[in-house]
Amino acid sequence: MTQTLRVGILGAGGYTGAELVRLVHQHPRLRLVLVAAREKAGRRLTDVLPGALGVSGLSELVLEAFDPEQAPELAKRLDVVFLCLPHAASARAGKALYQAGVQVVDLSADFRLKDGAVYEKTYGEHPAKELLGQAVYGQPELHRSELSGAKLIAAPGCHVTTSLLPLAPLLKNALIETTPIIIDSKTGVSGGGRSPAAAFHFPEASEGIRPYKVGSTHRHVPEIEQELSLAAGQPITVCFTPVLAPMSRGILVTAYARPKAGVTADACRKAAEELYRDGLVSVLPEGTLPDTLWVRGSARAHVAYVLDQHAGLVLAMCAIDNLARGASAQAVQAFNVSQGWPDALGLPELPLFP
Amino acid sequence: MTQTLRVGILGAGGYTGAELVRLVHQHPRLRLVLVAAREKAGRRLTDVLPGALGVSGLSELVLEAFDPEQAPELAKRLDVVFLCLPHAASARAGKALYQAGVQVVDLSADFRLKDGAVYEKTYGEHPAKELLGQAVYGQPELHRSELSGAKLIAAPGCHVTTSLLPLAPLLKNALIETTPIIIDSKTGVSGGGRSPAAAFHFPEASEGIRPYKVGSTHRHVPEIEQELSLAAGQPITVCFTPVLAPMSRGILVTAYARPKAGVTADACRKAAEELYRDGLVSVLPEGTLPDTLWVRGSARAHVAYVLDQHAGLVLAMCAIDNLARGASAQAVQAFNVSQGWPDALGLPELPLFP
Amino acid sequence: MTQTLRVGILGAGGYTGAELVRLVHQHPRLRLVLVAAREKAGRRLTDVLPGALGVSGLSELVLEAFDPEQAPELAKRLDVVFLCLPHAASARAGKALYQAGVQVVDLSADFRLKDGAVYEKTYGEHPAKELLGQAVYGQPELHRSELSGAKLIAAPGCHVTTSLLPLAPLLKNALIETTPIIIDSKTGVSGGGRSPAAAFHFPEASEGIRPYKVGSTHRHVPEIEQELSLAAGQPITVCFTPVLAPMSRGILVTAYARPKAGVTADACRKAAEELYRDGLVSVLPEGTLPDTLWVRGSARAHVAYVLDQHAGLVLAMCAIDNLARGASAQAVQAFNVSQGWPDALGLPELPLFP
Amino acid sequence: MTQTLRVGILGAGGYTGAELVRLVHQHPRLRLVLVAAREKAGRRLTDVLPGALGVSGLSELVLEAFDPEQAPELAKRLDVVFLCLPHAASARAGKALYQAGVQVVDLSADFRLKDGAVYEKTYGEHPAKELLGQAVYGQPELHRSELSGAKLIAAPGCHVTTSLLPLAPLLKNALIETTPIIIDSKTGVSGGGRSPAAAFHFPEASEGIRPYKVGSTHRHVPEIEQELSLAAGQPITVCFTPVLAPMSRGILVTAYARPKAGVTADACRKAAEELYRDGLVSVLPEGTLPDTLWVRGSARAHVAYVLDQHAGLVLAMCAIDNLARGASAQAVQAFNVSQGWPDALGLPELPLFP
Repeated sequence: MTQTLRVGILGAGGYTGAELVRLVHQHPRLRLVLVAAREKAGRRLTDVLPGALGVSGLSELVLEAFDPEQAPELAKRLDVVFLCLPHAASARAGKALYQAGVQVVDLSADFRLKDGAVYEKTYGEHPAKELLGQAVYGQPELHRSELSGAKLIAAPGCHVTTSLLPLAPLLKNALIETTPIIIDSKTGVSGGGRSPAAAFHFPEASEGIRPYKVGSTHRHVPEIEQELSLAAGQPITVCFTPVLAPMSRGILVTAYARPKAGVTADACRKAAEELYRDGLVSVLPEGTLPDTLWVRGSARAHVAYVLDQHAGLVLAMCAIDNLARGASAQAVQAFNVSQGWPDALGLPELPLFP
Repeated sequence: MTQTLRVGILGAGGYTGAELVRLVHQHPRLRLVLVAAREKAGRRLTDVLPGALGVSGLSELVLEAFDPEQAPELAKRLDVVFLCLPHAASARAGKALYQAGVQVVDLSADFRLKDGAVYEKTYGEHPAKELLGQAVYGQPELHRSELSGAKLIAAPGCHVTTSLLPLAPLLKNALIETTPIIIDSKTGVSGGGRSPAAAFHFPEASEGIRPYKVGSTHRHVPEIEQELSLAAGQPITVCFTPVLAPMSRGILVTAYARPKAGVTADACRKAAEELYRDGLVSVLPEGTLPDTLWVRGSARAHVAYVLDQHAGLVLAMCAIDNLARGASAQAVQAFNVSQGWPDALGLPELPLFP
Repeated sequence: MTQTLRVGILGAGGYTGAELVRLVHQHPRLRLVLVAAREKAGRRLTDVLPGALGVSGLSELVLEAFDPEQAPELAKRLDVVFLCLPHAASARAGKALYQAGVQVVDLSADFRLKDGAVYEKTYGEHPAKELLGQAVYGQPELHRSELSGAKLIAAPGCHVTTSLLPLAPLLKNALIETTPIIIDSKTGVSGGGRSPAAAFHFPEASEGIRPYKVGSTHRHVPEIEQELSLAAGQPITVCFTPVLAPMSRGILVTAYARPKAGVTADACRKAAEELYRDGLVSVLPEGTLPDTLWVRGSARAHVAYVLDQHAGLVLAMCAIDNLARGASAQAVQAFNVSQGWPDALGLPELPLFP
Repeated sequence: MTQTLRVGILGAGGYTGAELVRLVHQHPRLRLVLVAAREKAGRRLTDVLPGALGVSGLSELVLEAFDPEQAPELAKRLDVVFLCLPHAASARAGKALYQAGVQVVDLSADFRLKDGAVYEKTYGEHPAKELLGQAVYGQPELHRSELSGAKLIAAPGCHVTTSLLPLAPLLKNALIETTPIIIDSKTGVSGGGRSPAAAFHFPEASEGIRPYKVGSTHRHVPEIEQELSLAAGQPITVCFTPVLAPMSRGILVTAYARPKAGVTADACRKAAEELYRDGLVSVLPEGTLPDTLWVRGSARAHVAYVLDQHAGLVLAMCAIDNLARGASAQAVQAFNVSQGWPDALGLPELPLFP
């Protein structure tokens, strides 16, 4: 019988933490042994996740506090930790646990950017800049070999994943021009986190759709450009517009780029199929357009391509679940790859539909 | 290594069929080998379930037609079949497959009612009345011993499950009077099925809540009364009001009954905990009220009790996912029990949250 | 040409305040001259109500602070004031303005209860108990004659309106028994106000339905019983269960009562039609059931009756828009009646559909 | 006292028809005297619009059939008719009524395109091509003088309105290049009409967002380009992507164009303010981004501009209610202008919020 690895989740009271509890619980080789949430320490996990009421192995768990100084002690209890903490706090916790020998999968932005200066311009001071070079960007289909055996994994941002997956095949194969690529990214409300706020108050978030942080000012822009540039082998600039849509989960990107001469939608699909032969990205056939409902709760991403012959542009589209493929499920997938396990091990490949 | 059983789903194009595809796919001892959908026969499963695009083992499946005459042939390919067909059609298919030696789990109403006359008054002529006595009512927590080895299982109705689970412990322990019990049952729109209709058209189903089939005229009423009477050991009459709520999944029942003298909410909870010691029903602690969001996609039911001291009534509540615990997941749970497997084997016990 | 009256709204930053701005703006005999919102004082009305951007007569308005000491000064600027303030604050403001000669329509609970002791048990100390006897309960169809010329109007609560309108005709005509009447009241999220809170956070309020403040503990219960008892001419006890439904606006009540011998649904409808001959309550014909979508944004209430012959109960139903008929539109209707104007003057009688 | 004009609505059973009933009913100078709906002829208006139950002047109306041959007879009963019919049927009805002397406001696409050949390529044969030259395009802010006294008004399409309003000021003032302009247009489900269909079935339209008719293949593209070209004084090509969002009403456009050298967001706002000095378009101040919730039910459009300095693009945005400003309210506004009345007469300028 195969051994299971012991998992801790720091920041279990938020949405990506809750999603990780769901995914780890149904993973055949993982066992959840620690949940932490600073402000709720001492309360039961079921206080922040009532869906776990009565579930054996979860309903007894008590939320712990975590202090980086406890890292050596925690290292005795854990094989791997998933960090669902605010940035900076995540780097502090990650550094301590990594140095204590725990494998770290960080869902914050702290280890995603290669260039510490870009990080500090975007997020402020970095508490563990010296580790940036050791972190592996956890986009499994694009960084598969580096992930093998990785001990510090930076799980990608949700808007970044939805932007990168449809565009990477086009850039890697030089199918599009590198003039500014326009990315219009519509996200569900859970992307804003679990803390109540006016913008996410039900009566004001339902039945309305609105852009926010426009003008390529969203903090995910440097990360998008880092990864697109890596794929292209040259610097890429994007025009990025996030839009808040009245749904809980999901991101849909419609991206616009100028095709190189003679490029067809079929060529785009072929490039994507080639790149995503392994992994959890489905390339939709001609005539099928993505819908976030089809990936809700699933670890899969759906990408699709259409050539707009009227306007002379390629339309590259992608739908994911922002909390699953855009965060927690992708983090588990990256972890699976780091262990040499199949990408999909323990992960839902089908959506909750409807 | 354990052997897997071969599963067929008839009526895979509807919502309970889609939910079964999801559940069977992640079940460690089941393997989906046949999907049928009369009107879509010849098309791919992914045409009706695009979430399966790219999923190995599912994306290749082609929807078949099914004719009861083919039952002997199918018996060679299948160990168990789940029927997600309209009533009457389900009985015809179920009879043929059952007689051909396939284990049958029927999600229609055809084998739920013990009394053929009640069936015919409610649904019309029954094509296989002779089998009513052999079918086992698939409410696992209440019919556990009969389910062991059952070859013909009638999966319960969604409103019935939500009504029965909170009330059965009270009736079995004579904690409430048997004067008409009032059941106010709020259901999500997926309960109406996948066929488009004016009542379920997005602009008219969202942002509105409305009763329907009121006056205890809903077809689930005889089934509710059959099972409540069985629990009580005497005839029970209910006043049943279904209400359509603007959400995709979920049923919430608030039921009202007069308590026997001295009965407390705590006594109700204790009776439920006792009855549901095994199985997948969570009894919520004092102060916690059920929410359908906490069971969305999950095989679990949540029940809760409050004594309304002001009015002298017991309030018995239950939340389930109508497609999961109210249909497909409960069908798999009953099947698990029939095989002697743990109730929860392969089933999601945590919701998709949020 | 008819003169217009000058209107002030205190608490214009909340939902009932916003709804009043909409209604007053389209009222042919009212002119909005003052908007106040303590915490937002000094900011433009459009900061809290961006829908007013560019609207002549509104976009220039600046939110003022209000202190009861300013009442005499305000009395020079205003003919009538609508109070959308928290309880207690409302009584203080209302007392000062009333005594300064301004007509007051209070949307808080402060002047609704006739019995100061009941108020204090429910809400705490009352800052203006001496005025309770002078306030008129602003349910226009039931208190029409008292409203004529009233200077202090207590606009009813939203759950109360939805409970009272379908039941009052039955109680006034002794069509039902007075054993506990069960009221199951499903409300939209805007009923919880505009302040963000976990329960109203979009990802946790959408796709879920849940009871709250059950066991007849909701603060509206004494008000419901006061008004039902008044209609019945004897004390009435209710079992009241509020349920939060995933929609912005609307309340649907399904109420259950035992009919007197021989009572039919038709008799219930006739009693309601008689009582509501004038006013803004529509009695739905046999076979039509209420839907909150059909009254969204409208000043009208829809009531309907069904006799559940199976269980021997009358089902009395009502749908309103909680912010319109359940609050602001009803307040304007009561004000219209106080002025001797038609109930519907300036009020929307049609919903925003869909 | 001013006289009222007599209004007929053909196609009163659909959403734009229902919206017109609402708007005409509250218009001080219009009186609804005829409602027609072929398939529902003989039934009451309240059968298709239950919100009108009990409303004096509406609840008695019976839906009529309409045959173009009856036009002369109808001309005696009507001053103006609003056509909410499918294309081609609308042209036939419109021609007959126009020739009989009734003022016609057509909400279909039949009289919008100036070039009959473009119409026929897009929609098929045109039954009244000879009238194309006499129809006035009913975008009030852009065709104000032509609308004065117009007898045949073509009310614009919803996606067209949302695209045209933010872009017209930029093109008229040559603030942007005319390289393909990218228009990403997110629409609510009511835009798909009232007929139930799989794509609009609540469980499949809620909690999902998806593009449709991509690649500039949507039938509104020729109309968008006609009007943008008119504004620019030269041919304009667009890349148009419609996206279905999970809400009933509303359209949000985010459009991308390359600015001429030195153009600022402020210059864009000034151009829009100048162009929209009269009329019902609000230009949002710097820092405020549009939200469809802020215009729900309102006749107003909100436009906003941001310069994306990072990517070197202008982002032009617009939010409207597709049924109000995108259809029925704009039709009434155009009619108001044709009569020499104020644009806003009888129209809601404030949204239903929330």
